[in-house]
Amino acid sequence: MKRNLLLTPGPTQIPPRICAALGKPIIHHRTPEFQSNIKEAIEGLQYVFQTKNDVYMLASSGTGAMEAAVANLVGPGDKALTVQGGKFGERWTELCKAYQAEAEVISIEWGTAVKAEQIKKALEENKDVKAVFVTLNETSTGVVTDIKAIAEVVQKTDAVLVVDAISGLGVVDLKMDDWGVDIVVSGSQKGFMLPPGLSFIAVNEKAYKLVETCNNPRYYFDLRKAKKAFQKSDTAFTPAIGIIIALNEALKMFKEDGLENLFKHYERLAQGTRAAAKALKLELLASEDCQSNALTSIKMPESVDGVKLVKLMRDTYGITIAGGQADLKGKIIRIAHMGCVDEYDILAGISCLEKVLKELGYDFPIGAGVAAAQKIFNQ
Amino acid sequence: MKRNLLLTPGPTQIPPRICAALGKPIIHHRTPEFQSNIKEAIEGLQYVFQTKNDVYMLASSGTGAMEAAVANLVGPGDKALTVQGGKFGERWTELCKAYQAEAEVISIEWGTAVKAEQIKKALEENKDVKAVFVTLNETSTGVVTDIKAIAEVVQKTDAVLVVDAISGLGVVDLKMDDWGVDIVVSGSQKGFMLPPGLSFIAVNEKAYKLVETCNNPRYYFDLRKAKKAFQKSDTAFTPAIGIIIALNEALKMFKEDGLENLFKHYERLAQGTRAAAKALKLELLASEDCQSNALTSIKMPESVDGVKLVKLMRDTYGITIAGGQADLKGKIIRIAHMGCVDEYDILAGISCLEKVLKELGYDFPIGAGVAAAQKIFNQ
Repeated sequence: MKRNLLLTPGPTQIPPRICAALGKPIIHHRTPEFQSNIKEAIEGLQYVFQTKNDVYMLASSGTGAMEAAVANLVGPGDKALTVQGGKFGERWTELCKAYQAEAEVISIEWGTAVKAEQIKKALEENKDVKAVFVTLNETSTGVVTDIKAIAEVVQKTDAVLVVDAISGLGVVDLKMDDWGVDIVVSGSQKGFMLPPGLSFIAVNEKAYKLVETCNNPRYYFDLRKAKKAFQKSDTAFTPAIGIIIALNEALKMFKEDGLENLFKHYERLAQGTRAAAKALKLELLASEDCQSNALTSIKMPESVDGVKLVKLMRDTYGITIAGGQADLKGKIIRIAHMGCVDEYDILAGISCLEKVLKELGYDFPIGAGVAAAQKIFNQ
Repeated sequence: MKRNLLLTPGPTQIPPRICAALGKPIIHHRTPEFQSNIKEAIEGLQYVFQTKNDVYMLASSGTGAMEAAVANLVGPGDKALTVQGGKFGERWTELCKAYQAEAEVISIEWGTAVKAEQIKKALEENKDVKAVFVTLNETSTGVVTDIKAIAEVVQKTDAVLVVDAISGLGVVDLKMDDWGVDIVVSGSQKGFMLPPGLSFIAVNEKAYKLVETCNNPRYYFDLRKAKKAFQKSDTAFTPAIGIIIALNEALKMFKEDGLENLFKHYERLAQGTRAAAKALKLELLASEDCQSNALTSIKMPESVDGVKLVKLMRDTYGITIAGGQADLKGKIIRIAHMGCVDEYDILAGISCLEKVLKELGYDFPIGAGVAAAQKIFNQ
């Protein structure tokens, strides 16, 4: 009778109607039926990406779409600007290095966000930067970046702005066209409430010009092939048929709720979780000016081993949250709000967190976290 | 009430028990539960690949695993040997060129198979070939290649042998270890009866030595990262969780039936289909010495447009077969036997083929194809 509740920043829970879509018999992808599935998906993705640009679907996890961005933009002799304030920012640097581009790195403390002025300064000092790679929602720290301000800066230069929105899209606001972001990358298993294995990359004209002149070796992630297929409502290689059909169910849910309402929903869940942490006298990792609504990262008291806590919650009580990564291992826990999560899921998570904190000897008044969250949820 | 029968060489039909597995709630991939799923999958894959080597799982369609093979083996200045006798053989050449390797191409007529002697001669004339890329089952022509004989030749050289077994594995025999194949690539949506989006690459020691010295830019498809993760029963990047869980259901089915029995099953289906074609006075595309048991490609009479025939069968009667690709468009049809297909499916396909051939004005005694196939199936 143990529940299996995922409060993890990917994969996120899959709602029953999407599970049902995933369990349907397969159809062939070179048919008018599937072509209309692709058209529907693209139209819905453009709604969520808030763009009129092409959105390409790749059969890969999110890192594949990140590689597509790098492999099609910067190569040997090119300069890229990256920001390292967490594991996924570091991935941009690693990818640039894999493609032998020179990565100019802005290093910031984990738990803080890069400022638009830092990007501006770096671009002034490195006029030859071809692409700036940033992260909307840094999943490893629970930090959200002010993409709008950064886009304002980058737009005035020749560089293109690439945003990893894998764990942020559909959860926190990102207006690709209005803000002037050149490439946005995302994946299926976060806000989209799908299994991993499908990724997305939206590309505007400014970025596509760079794609056309890039000489890197590439094939599966070649965006020129993706564009050619896109124009025929097709994919360059065999698509992730099952997940795309389920994606259309997810996109229907996005439209039923409305993007703006979803952003407000996740904001409320995050506010409740932050209030609960405070009531439990636990500190947040992310600074106050950049706390993400996609997930909340909470520092563990000295006396509590975060690894043990996550294991106990999962193995004994069936509620899965995430621990810290790299240097933060054991030191933080991460409770995600993204995807198919409501306030009662969050209350279950906080209640279970209280139970296990108590078991591990941490002292606080039982119920304080849940009460604080409930207060927010009932405002 | 129209049936939706797929007799296509990928995606193939998904059996109900695998559909059910695909519709299950998702689990997190960094858990002991999923780790045991990975272990089970690897063990089962090794059974199907007939190998003790590492088998890496990538979240991509089959072409991604093909790119992994090329990107990790040959780069600028390296020489590769490829065989072009169909669309998928050509893909090896394209991939080698994308990675700026020099591709020595053996061109053969579509519908024929490369001979081991041709490979031998080419290797003698090009002593510096690092890798030989061949195709087990050429899906575009219905030709099966004698991998055993080719492996015997390549084994005696420093070159590694890479086999695209995407549409052949689990359908026709391929003894990776016994025959001495160095890399085998496969995908989920053919013999494995799964949706596309998961691919496999098995690598032996001889090949891995080349992987380690290869300087190509790569990240998502970097087999060094795949190996490192494999050793911890993990994947380098977020895996295709849903398809992997369903894969274990497919692997159970493989073991229940037994590989040898499956090969015999597909042989019988192919024999029946070939007999039907003959009874309908239709020629096969593949030469007699290399007809694959994975699919049968049948030439259309001059008077019949293959594109129209495939459309009619699918849109009017709900039975999907494949047409010809590239120069063969409209000139052949392809009836697949791979995956979850039995003799009654084949009979339905042939019966529908007869109906539509008649509608398109081709003259033959109705029932001749079905009777010929039935005769084989009842032997």
